[in-house]
Amino acid sequence: MRNTSFASMHCSLAQSLELIGDWWTPLVLRDLYLGLNRFDQLVTDLGISRNLLTDRLTTLMDGGLVVRTPYQENPVRHAYALTEAGQELVPILLALTAWGDRWATPPAGQPIRFTHNTCGKVTTATICCSECGDELTSADVTPSPGPGGRTAPGTALIASVLSGVEAKP
Amino acid sequence: MRNTSFASMHCSLAQSLELIGDWWTPLVLRDLYLGLNRFDQLVTDLGISRNLLTDRLTTLMDGGLVVRTPYQENPVRHAYALTEAGQELVPILLALTAWGDRWATPPAGQPIRFTHNTCGKVTTATICCSECGDELTSADVTPSPGPGGRTAPGTALIASVLSGVEAKP
Repeated sequence: MRNTSFASMHCSLAQSLELIGDWWTPLVLRDLYLGLNRFDQLVTDLGISRNLLTDRLTTLMDGGLVVRTPYQENPVRHAYALTEAGQELVPILLALTAWGDRWATPPAGQPIRFTHNTCGKVTTATICCSECGDELTSADVTPSPGPGGRTAPGTALIASVLSGVEAKP
Repeated sequence: MRNTSFASMHCSLAQSLELIGDWWTPLVLRDLYLGLNRFDQLVTDLGISRNLLTDRLTTLMDGGLVVRTPYQENPVRHAYALTEAGQELVPILLALTAWGDRWATPPAGQPIRFTHNTCGKVTTATICCSECGDELTSADVTPSPGPGGRTAPGTALIASVLSGVEAKP
């Protein structure tokens, strides 16, 4: 249902959205992560139409986020799985899920809990600094242009705004 | 352009996607975070149509992610800003941006860099366990049903699959 391509934007967020494809796609990735790996399981779980799911899985395979392997011949049936790139999206989906738990909780409470196997505790995916490990908030990060920053569609003003910004107000 | 509502799904990821609205929306949130706060700046930066941007900003305000305040009368002009809920999405967008830097980098390199003010280093937003602080990967988290887990549209199989799953294979 999306008519605009973000492929020409010099923005890694836009590129991520371009690769991921559309709103159904995070839910498809969620289901593959949670252990549903067959086409019919995804159709049943999500209530998505077969055509739309075929389209989304094709986008995900073209984008390198999902691979499929035949588990049956005659007729051929495929099992779908996350690639390394797809697996690396999962923690981000967990963080978005935690945000939804906090800001859009259903009345009955959190639908899914996640236990961190290493420490054994129920965990909330939290975004931290790769360098010092502290939690990152929007207030304590300062953006600046990287080597690939460009004035281009989707970033027509940002590059120049960032060039003049030494620290966020 | 999205025709399906995720509002009835018992899944905090689906609820997050429902609140955020559609693909343009993360880029609108990005721009508000980066310091563009006027309608015309957003139109210019993103190359989005005025109608579509009006629609997206209305969704964001209805969802409690964005507020606007008048900065001029006659004609009235508004400045847009992230609410607390919107600000808490920013680190997740940073994590998605880092994923895009890694998996969909433009040839010229990373478009934007982020410096963590606290430690002073260029940072990569990383998803960590709220309890032990270790980095979270898809392999070391085990999902289980929460109090709000339901067999419902969008989670027609997941609740029962998770009930039978003690640890991910």
